[in-house]
Order: sequence, then C-alpha cells, then structure tokens
Amino acid sequence: VLAAPKKLLVDFGMRRAHGAEAAIMAARATHLAGFDGTSTVLALPMFGIPIYGTMAHSFVQAHDEEARAFERFAASRPNNAVLLLDTYDTEAAARTVVELFLRSRIPRPSAVRLDSGDLARHARNVRAILDEGGLADVDIFASGGLDEHRVAALLGEGAPIDGFGVGTAMDTSRDAPYLDCAYKLVEYAGRPRRKLSEEKATLPGRKQIHRLYHRHGVMMRDVVTVEGERCEGEPLLVPVMRRGRRLEPPETMEALRRRARHQLDRLPPALRSLEPASAYPVAISPALRALIESCPAGSRRAPPRERPKAK
Amino acid sequence: VLAAPKKLLVDFGMRRAHGAEAAIMAARATHLAGFDGTSTVLALPMFGIPIYGTMAHSFVQAHDEEARAFERFAASRPNNAVLLLDTYDTEAAARTVVELFLRSRIPRPSAVRLDSGDLARHARNVRAILDEGGLADVDIFASGGLDEHRVAALLGEGAPIDGFGVGTAMDTSRDAPYLDCAYKLVEYAGRPRRKLSEEKATLPGRKQIHRLYHRHGVMMRDVVTVEGERCEGEPLLVPVMRRGRRLEPPETMEALRRRARHQLDRLPPALRSLEPASAYPVAISPALRALIESCPAGSRRAPPRERPKAK
Repeated sequence: VLAAPKKLLVDFGMRRAHGAEAAIMAARATHLAGFDGTSTVLALPMFGIPIYGTMAHSFVQAHDEEARAFERFAASRPNNAVLLLDTYDTEAAARTVVELFLRSRIPRPSAVRLDSGDLARHARNVRAILDEGGLADVDIFASGGLDEHRVAALLGEGAPIDGFGVGTAMDTSRDAPYLDCAYKLVEYAGRPRRKLSEEKATLPGRKQIHRLYHRHGVMMRDVVTVEGERCEGEPLLVPVMRRGRRLEPPETMEALRRRARHQLDRLPPALRSLEPASAYPVAISPALRALIESCPAGSRRAPPRERPKAK
Repeated sequence: VLAAPKKLLVDFGMRRAHGAEAAIMAARATHLAGFDGTSTVLALPMFGIPIYGTMAHSFVQAHDEEARAFERFAASRPNNAVLLLDTYDTEAAARTVVELFLRSRIPRPSAVRLDSGDLARHARNVRAILDEGGLADVDIFASGGLDEHRVAALLGEGAPIDGFGVGTAMDTSRDAPYLDCAYKLVEYAGRPRRKLSEEKATLPGRKQIHRLYHRHGVMMRDVVTVEGERCEGEPLLVPVMRRGRRLEPPETMEALRRRARHQLDRLPPALRSLEPASAYPVAISPALRALIESCPAGSRRAPPRERPKAK
C-alpha cells in the first residue's frame, strides 16, 4: 500500500494461505490496509470486499490455440476482460490481443496480465505493442512472486504497470510469519500481577496507552501508563466489551479502512519506509514504574496494594 | 521427530497458527509426522489425537503464592500434574515442589515444565533438585521458542530433558512458510498440454512416479514417467477418487502414522539431517522427454497426439 500509491492492488494469496479461514482473513486484512480487493470470491458475500479476477493459465491451455481462449474469455466478460499473456510467449500474446481487437474478434479488454519473467521488460514491450495497436487505455497488471520490495523496485525503474496481484509473500507473512505476543495476566482479584520469567517479564496492572503527536499530526511517541494516571496525549484503549457483550455495533468496513488510511498517513516517515527504521519510542510512566518496583523480581508474592483508581 | 528420538513431543502452536483451522490441521500434521500429541483440545474429538497440557503462567499468577497454585493444580490432576516452574524463579520453584511433596501437600507430579531462560542449565539444576528430593522419576519438559535446531542443540549438550513442547516455529512454518507448488493443467480433451511461462514451464501429460530403493530399503531415486510407460521401481500415484467419489474408506490415523514413520526410516541419511543436503535425485523418463519435445516452446499449439495408453 505504501510502496505502490494509486496502483490497483489485489490479494491473490488464497492458494498459499494456511487454510481457507486464513485466506478469508487475509482478504479482509489486506482490504482494511488499503488493498482494492481480492480474488477470494467468498470475501464478497462475507465482508463486501470487491472481487478481482483474471483468466487462468489452465483456461488458455484448455484451448488448442491461445487466440481462441482470448476470444472466448473476452466474450464471457465483454466489459471487463483481463487477458493473461504469459502462458507461452508474452509479447506474441500481446500481438495476438491487438490483432483480435483490430479484427473485431474481441471487445476492448480492460487489462492484460503478466505473470512471469522480467516483469519490467515485458511491461515495456507489451505497453508499446498495445499503444501501437490502439489499445493505449488497456491497463497492464502484474503478478508472480511479488512482495513490497519487488513492487517498489518495478515502480522505481519506471515499469509501466498499473496494478499488482500480491499473494504468497503476503498471505503467508513470509518475512514475519508470526507476531511474538501473547495474552498475559496482569491483574487478578483486584491486585496487579507480574510474571518474572527470564527475558519474558511482564508489566503489572491495568494500563492505558497515551499517544502524542507532533503539531502537524504525525505520531511522536507513546506512553504506557497505569489506568487512571494523568498523562497528556490521546488515550488509545477503550472498552469494547463488558460482561460478555459488545458495547457498540461493529464498524463498517469503510470506517475501518478510513481509520487505517488515516493512521498510515500519520506514521513517522521512517516507519513508512520499507527499510529498517529505528524503533518508535514507547515510554513507561512514573506510576507504572513505581508499580513495577513494588513487584520485585523473585518475590513470588503479589504486592498487597490496591490498583490505582479506575475511571 | 528426527532431532529428538524417543522424547515426548507435543504441538504447542495453536496460539500462533494462522487461525483456528490452521491450528487444528497443524495438530493433525504434526501427529502424523510423529508427535505424541497436542495442546489443542479440539484435536482429540476431531482426530483422536492425544491431548497434553500443563499449567499456565496465569494460573500461578492468579494465586498470591506459587506454592498454593502448585497445590491446587496438583489436587485437580492427582495422577498427571505437570507443574510450571518459571513464573518467578525456576530453581526456587523446583525446591517448592520438593518441599510440598515431602510435606505431603501434593501427590507426586508426573513432570515439571521449564519455559524460559537457559533451558539446559535450568534442566540440570532442576534435575539435581528433584533427584535429591526423591523425585528422580519426575520428568522435565521444556518449551519456549523451540525449533528442531534448538532441540538438537539441547540434546547434543546432554540437557536432561524428557520432552519438548514446540509451537510457533512449527505451526507457522517459520523457516518455510509456504510450498511453492500449484495445480497445473497437463492434459485436456485427451491431449497433453504444456505451459511455457519463463522459469515456470510445466511437464505435459498424465504421469506416474516410480521410486527406486537400495537393496537395504533406503530410497535411491525417483523417475517421472508418462502414465503407462514401463519403468522399474514402485509406482507412487494411485487413484483415490473417480467421478467425484473416493474409492477407499479413509485410512486410520494409526495407519497414516505408521506409513510416515516407515517413510522417514527409508529417507537417505543426508535427507534425515538438519543440515542442508544435496537434492534427492529425480529423473525424467525417455517417453516423457519425447512428449516434452513434441510440445516445443513458442508453438502456442498443443501437439496433436494421443496420450500414451492408460492402464
């Protein structure tokens, strides 16, 4: 989303996701994060996510001639055909598309898709063939082993690509396949609790996170405080359930997408980069520090103190 | 399974799996591969997989004193308590277990669990404390960020550990989060079909795989043949469905586990190692090579030939 602003971005990852449930959740997560849609069809009835699809290699292969496959596919989607060019020879297929169009054997396709080889080179060749053939308004869509770095590199070298299908690297979270966090008990029976396991110690007690912003709206730092402690900044944690019931109706997908976009916009520039950045500053408040001190390492007893007054 | 022969191995990965479905399938896959069981409880009613659990840090933290947590947990599982030692101080907790046992406050636990810090050092310390306290038959179970390399290293340095809980690295397939394979069309309407995309070309036609073994039963190499072609070795592909119906009832979990164990035993030694090995040899048969030649690159036409006679 950050690497390809204003490009069409489609989740193509279902076949590599860790099961059908993971694929559906990936379609939802990527749409929230700014993707335009997904090729996972069930995401439309479940979440209202737009579906994008293109033809498959098997559709081309099921025909004795590629041109017949293009004709039939275009006839079945006269207003929105995306023709796949790389089953046999990408540039030859682009010339076939132009020829079919000029001979009125197919309506104007909305896009063509490249799925293998040097995508930047093929995109340039195909763009020239299409432009020369009167198909300058046909988009070029690319897929095939893409991730954010590859997308940024393709756009960086000026490849004439209008949209990307991203699958495996995203749906399997290839470079970060898990998040090292877990539920931990921090309060029980009205008392703060603390786990002291080596390199796994937790911060005790109920908390609030306050986020501070620069004057122009960019995030500056967060402060982890004890709940009820006074602190400047925007409190981030709000109750969403009480006694097993949600307090508000679910937000719409559009509201969730708007918030994600707004928060991406307010990320510090270093954190919007694909390159490793220094960590975002997170501080511990004085009251939380005092609470940690009162749960010293090795005590094996919870401290007999009341938790700070809750709101 | 190969790195820790004869140790108790338990899938602990549910919380990090890519959803509930992925967690259940990981419990099944790891049990097939040789794990003894899982902490994912639903795997018992669904697949008959044995369930192993230990106490949680939150159970210890919910008590004002660790000793009370041990007493209550042991009372709830008098025949099979696994006590978690590292919530505050591992060695101190081991001494607490001995003291509780000697004062008859708890029955003999079946094991203790270590979940943080230098697991080899803690295992040695805890082993000594338990042995000295008359608990030489209490097992030591380790968990916490383990993978096959860490397990092999712990056993290699002689750590007295009797079993391992392995989670995140396995259920998320951290080092290999996806398998780069896909369904491809190779025959349609009685004719072999071939995709020629750059670096993604496929082998056309219906196939059989023949596996050849050394005289002592270890796998030697595979040959990919055209279906019906004569070839020495064991044919691996058998029909499991026809006209949308399975041909045989599903195999039992025990039969599946037996086959996995048998096949692991027959892997070449280099492929049983945790270190990278040279690839297992896979050859293309003469008839398949001829079929490839008859679908030359760039033709964009399927060759007009009959597929070899099927069985």
